[in-house]
Amino acid sequence: MNYEKLFADRAEIMSVSAIREILKVVNQPGMISLAGGIPAPESFPMDILEQLCSDVIKKYGDKAFQYDLTEGFIPLREALVGFVGRKGIETKVDNIMITTGSQGVLDSIGKILLNKGDKVAVEAPTYLGAIQAFNPYLPEYISMETDEDGLIPESLEGTLKNHNIKMVYLVPTFQNPTGRTIPIDRRKRIAEIIKKNDAFLVEDDPYGELRYRGDKVAPIQTLAPDNVLYTSTLSKLFAPGLRIGYFIAPPKISYMMVMAKQGVDLHTSTFSQALAAEYISAGHMDKQIPKIISVYKPRQEAMLEAISENFPKGFNWSKPEGGMFIWAEGPQGANMEDIYYKAIKEKVAFVPGKFFYTKKGQGLETMRLNYSKADEKTIKDAIKRLSEVLKSEINN
Amino acid sequence: MNYEKLFADRAEIMSVSAIREILKVVNQPGMISLAGGIPAPESFPMDILEQLCSDVIKKYGDKAFQYDLTEGFIPLREALVGFVGRKGIETKVDNIMITTGSQGVLDSIGKILLNKGDKVAVEAPTYLGAIQAFNPYLPEYISMETDEDGLIPESLEGTLKNHNIKMVYLVPTFQNPTGRTIPIDRRKRIAEIIKKNDAFLVEDDPYGELRYRGDKVAPIQTLAPDNVLYTSTLSKLFAPGLRIGYFIAPPKISYMMVMAKQGVDLHTSTFSQALAAEYISAGHMDKQIPKIISVYKPRQEAMLEAISENFPKGFNWSKPEGGMFIWAEGPQGANMEDIYYKAIKEKVAFVPGKFFYTKKGQGLETMRLNYSKADEKTIKDAIKRLSEVLKSEINN
Repeated sequence: MNYEKLFADRAEIMSVSAIREILKVVNQPGMISLAGGIPAPESFPMDILEQLCSDVIKKYGDKAFQYDLTEGFIPLREALVGFVGRKGIETKVDNIMITTGSQGVLDSIGKILLNKGDKVAVEAPTYLGAIQAFNPYLPEYISMETDEDGLIPESLEGTLKNHNIKMVYLVPTFQNPTGRTIPIDRRKRIAEIIKKNDAFLVEDDPYGELRYRGDKVAPIQTLAPDNVLYTSTLSKLFAPGLRIGYFIAPPKISYMMVMAKQGVDLHTSTFSQALAAEYISAGHMDKQIPKIISVYKPRQEAMLEAISENFPKGFNWSKPEGGMFIWAEGPQGANMEDIYYKAIKEKVAFVPGKFFYTKKGQGLETMRLNYSKADEKTIKDAIKRLSEVLKSEINN
Repeated sequence: MNYEKLFADRAEIMSVSAIREILKVVNQPGMISLAGGIPAPESFPMDILEQLCSDVIKKYGDKAFQYDLTEGFIPLREALVGFVGRKGIETKVDNIMITTGSQGVLDSIGKILLNKGDKVAVEAPTYLGAIQAFNPYLPEYISMETDEDGLIPESLEGTLKNHNIKMVYLVPTFQNPTGRTIPIDRRKRIAEIIKKNDAFLVEDDPYGELRYRGDKVAPIQTLAPDNVLYTSTLSKLFAPGLRIGYFIAPPKISYMMVMAKQGVDLHTSTFSQALAAEYISAGHMDKQIPKIISVYKPRQEAMLEAISENFPKGFNWSKPEGGMFIWAEGPQGANMEDIYYKAIKEKVAFVPGKFFYTKKGQGLETMRLNYSKADEKTIKDAIKRLSEVLKSEINN
């Protein structure tokens, strides 16, 4: 039969995934991938998982395998109240909702807020998974300017003034793709602007706990709780395969989010949630976080050092205090997509930065480098190989 | 801030959940609920779950906790190829996709196919969770007529002739809410009609293995594989809290389904999938299914017997060969929503049938009764209590 005639209008934008196409080669044998954003398996608490399963089965019995509330498994929400409290977020069990990864938050917020053509203000560059979640609801993206301190508040202010913005989407801490963090003074200014303009912000914070240097910065949510949906995930602090995300939002938003989620998956895996509840409440996570940091910190240092030693002149790169990514900008005219194809011949992969921009033609000279998956030696080898390609291509 | 102005147009239909409202009282102490569609915890393989967790951790290690393919965990898809083969569905690993419950299938198929106003043909009555999944995409529903053998093929034929139908949605086996099964002759006729009209069918089969009497009937998918998306779930054969659904569809449909799912949750819980893979491939499921049936069969018999002994004159009810529901129809003029409120005063709950119709005013005299959750004695008590209410209300 003719399947094409079946598809909805939104399928057109959903079917185009240029990044999926170019990253297909990443799994070739011998390839070193600095492309994905994948946690190190060495960061998972493998030593306690079997015991954790036993503990959960003993503690919750068949309830850990039964249908549960769309809002989420209550013991996990109770455990998260304390955890987010340490970030400065004041909330209660009823206001924490569990989702299937924080991707589940992004899909539902798009579903409840976005009519076709509604405007979403995003950082340039921004997180690709958010764009992928929002795209089926056919919004228009308005790019806001960033510098080494992340979003420039004046650009937010101008954007809210000049456009009818339905929602602002930010990754303020160790941003994907740049690794940059918005400092507290800017956060205060952003919170003021959001409140003054009666605007709504989605604050996506998957990496906040992965800090290797410097002081913690409060979430923007703590500065404007009535205007912010704050979302985070246990993918980087426990295990991504369990698919546990969560969010805290004003009650009217949360109510609609739950209605949306009910139609999407009824609820998130109860057993995954029960494992997470026990992992947090029994104190395992507090012990694990320093171990996770001890895996990533030397990898980041190795990458920064190797870049500094080997990259050709004309490059700038971010020096993040945490997270999983370094962002590098080559000289004007450099084309990182061309260089990507040269690099994979030398068995090293990264993500050309242009894929993180919503406007065509932006970020051609940029690239995102991930340091969470490969070990220090591999990272150094990869950066050397990549640098050779950059040297031979950039100065041509 | 003013949250109302933020919501998309689709939020209006999503926010209305009359059934959610009326079922809020179901959890009151002392209430016997014949309302939900919840599997018995006694049907879960609790005796092997701890061992299963250990086996999975040994076998797959950190891979069971890592990000995985959106399409699904390959060992689970391999195990399902054999399992669906026994239903007569010929497929291969590449064509089986895993979802977060079969609810995840319904959301994604709505997302990729439905423009606002597109027509979806459904049985009257039909499964409420499907309506909830499709509603955010703002389709129009066209009701098709059913009798004790489920969908009447002539009604399907007429519907496809008179309307531009984007998709037909059916639960052909032990339907929710009626428990009815479409016999093989009708299935052949339905497959012919679907093929002749180049129509697309979503065949939802959550209960097919829960057969207590009679012979298995082949899925419609086996009669028209190019025109059907077949979906099922492990919620009734393993544990609903793990949220494992799956589907088999023509490749062009599957490709778009995967693109949609990637934006919704990246993938389904890897650990849940690995548990399911081991549960099937190590032969546990084949041993468990007869145990599950031995829990439900006497409950169904107890309910049918109690209805037959106690319901007042003027009632008809389905006598399903399997599944989790009995459908009862009172005399013309009976109002089961009114009766529901009387019944909960007597501490017994059911679902008024009108909620399973997409047209207002239909099914006022009908009710859905679930027998999977309560034991035989409780079911008999509940039906007696309910019968007293029916007797006093219907003949008023």
